[in-house]
Amino acid sequence: MSSIDFTVYKGSPSGKIVKGSTSKDLRPDEVLLRVTHAGLCGTDLHHRNQDMVLSHEGVGVVEKVGSEVANYKVGDRAGWGYLHDACLHCDQCLSGNEIFCTKRAMYGESDFDQGAFATHAVWKEAFLFHIPDGVSSAEAAPLMCAGATVFNALELYGVRPTDRVGVVGIGGLGHLAIQFAAKMGCDVVVFSSTDSKRNEAVTLGAKEFYATRGARKLDIGRPVNYLIVTTSASPDWNQYLPIIAPMGTIFPLTVTDGNFSIPHMRLVGKGLRVQGSICPSRGLHVKMLRFAALHGIKPVIQTFPLTLEGIEEAIDKLEKGQIRYRGVLVAPGA
Amino acid sequence: MSSIDFTVYKGSPSGKIVKGSTSKDLRPDEVLLRVTHAGLCGTDLHHRNQDMVLSHEGVGVVEKVGSEVANYKVGDRAGWGYLHDACLHCDQCLSGNEIFCTKRAMYGESDFDQGAFATHAVWKEAFLFHIPDGVSSAEAAPLMCAGATVFNALELYGVRPTDRVGVVGIGGLGHLAIQFAAKMGCDVVVFSSTDSKRNEAVTLGAKEFYATRGARKLDIGRPVNYLIVTTSASPDWNQYLPIIAPMGTIFPLTVTDGNFSIPHMRLVGKGLRVQGSICPSRGLHVKMLRFAALHGIKPVIQTFPLTLEGIEEAIDKLEKGQIRYRGVLVAPGA
Repeated sequence: MSSIDFTVYKGSPSGKIVKGSTSKDLRPDEVLLRVTHAGLCGTDLHHRNQDMVLSHEGVGVVEKVGSEVANYKVGDRAGWGYLHDACLHCDQCLSGNEIFCTKRAMYGESDFDQGAFATHAVWKEAFLFHIPDGVSSAEAAPLMCAGATVFNALELYGVRPTDRVGVVGIGGLGHLAIQFAAKMGCDVVVFSSTDSKRNEAVTLGAKEFYATRGARKLDIGRPVNYLIVTTSASPDWNQYLPIIAPMGTIFPLTVTDGNFSIPHMRLVGKGLRVQGSICPSRGLHVKMLRFAALHGIKPVIQTFPLTLEGIEEAIDKLEKGQIRYRGVLVAPGA
Repeated sequence: MSSIDFTVYKGSPSGKIVKGSTSKDLRPDEVLLRVTHAGLCGTDLHHRNQDMVLSHEGVGVVEKVGSEVANYKVGDRAGWGYLHDACLHCDQCLSGNEIFCTKRAMYGESDFDQGAFATHAVWKEAFLFHIPDGVSSAEAAPLMCAGATVFNALELYGVRPTDRVGVVGIGGLGHLAIQFAAKMGCDVVVFSSTDSKRNEAVTLGAKEFYATRGARKLDIGRPVNYLIVTTSASPDWNQYLPIIAPMGTIFPLTVTDGNFSIPHMRLVGKGLRVQGSICPSRGLHVKMLRFAALHGIKPVIQTFPLTLEGIEEAIDKLEKGQIRYRGVLVAPGA
């Protein structure tokens, strides 16, 4: 077993991104990829102070496969997201919820290399996904976390094509939530602070659009059955609760510190559900890619070179809220 | 149409219960009941400052029926809960969710007579429930709200007999939640502040019991899939979150002011669901009574006379936390 050396970009205690190198063995069930594209997610900002390889929206080309690998061959395109490993034997794994593998405790406090800001990556075959024909590698990258996350909410928790679905915020997650929900047949209602993204929201599939800044009361007619919150701050519940139907669901998709707080009486009295939702397990990830390919769902991306300078520029723009709507780092020569 | 006069017990601005009288017509679709039993619910304390007839856990005997009433005859036993009326035509009603009838907006701010603290009551036939043989009227009363509320949570939101169900608090709701969940085949784990109710919890159907006061860490082995919170204060999430399985559900059943707050990161990262749940619509209320009768689920009650003095004594004991586990007011001579 010869070890493979490659370049990686990691967080560091100061928050500065550092270029380093790593060495990995290729085990029999693993695949070596040359990274071609890597998406930048808001959670990368949470991790930039840690000594770990950033980006969990990776897409690349297979360069080498381990002796037991059955489903990938050299030259295949493959992607990966947040899920890197699972025991496949615990209660959660056996129920198809390997994102919550109790042995790995990926929902816990531990951090781990995510690996897409690099020249290469080595992952177990079982946690890679084929990129469907018709989906470019650049567009596939944001589907690995942002797309997968919104799809998980829409697919796993009972959303029906007959539902009215509200999307709060148009960014990396929101602009994909609009597209997925619209293609599922839902009546999509978009909320954004100002009117500036109205036309784009409608182009992406929204049937209605409401600017919320300064609005005392939202008057949207029939209430929404689902509210997908993609803004980093919690919405003003006095504004939003009246427009959620009884037995409606709120998805607070953003990962943020502090508490999620909502008026108790109205949560209970209206039979509302607050559904924590993260990226999907493998089964739904595959369905997500198939659905996106079938319906031509495409992230709106802004590209940067996958270099130290490119990563720094993309992070800077993300922090300033200037990315429309997902940053993708492209390997030189890819 | 001759009007019917009867005695009622209402809240008042000072919080003192007042005895009064009311007069009602019997419409063609309505039933006149002589109240025999009325349960006392924590929410009655919320309403004691309002000019409304208290108690929504009513059981009585039919004394007279309107000309169009088809399913009740004089002498039948019937009960009612929190749901008194619904349009039966809005989206919610048409989906069998008439507890959330959008025309009545019963989950809104409006208050209304609940009617069981009285000598008589007049209700639409469509919102009454037959009391099954084998269920005494005294035991039926607490099923009308407390029993119905815990059953709704257990029946409507996917709880399976193979699930491990935690019940926090043993009171009016909790002691019924233990019984219903145990009879559904669930592995019931009970949490109470001290050991004082351990034996009773086990008798009611708990497989495990944990005293939580002063416990740094709860060590329960396999985590629970559902956590039914029946205490008026929110539990300490640092204590409880580690023992809820990924994709688990929290039911905050108590109606209380203020915010429901929970650590955002863990809600999302663990895919938890916070499910607001209230009393059921009619279909589930009927199933609840049938299930309770079939399995001999019986509230543990403490009776008081259905008089001004009796109501005041029961309220006093409820406020002091001295009722084991549900107060039932019994009409003199019933």
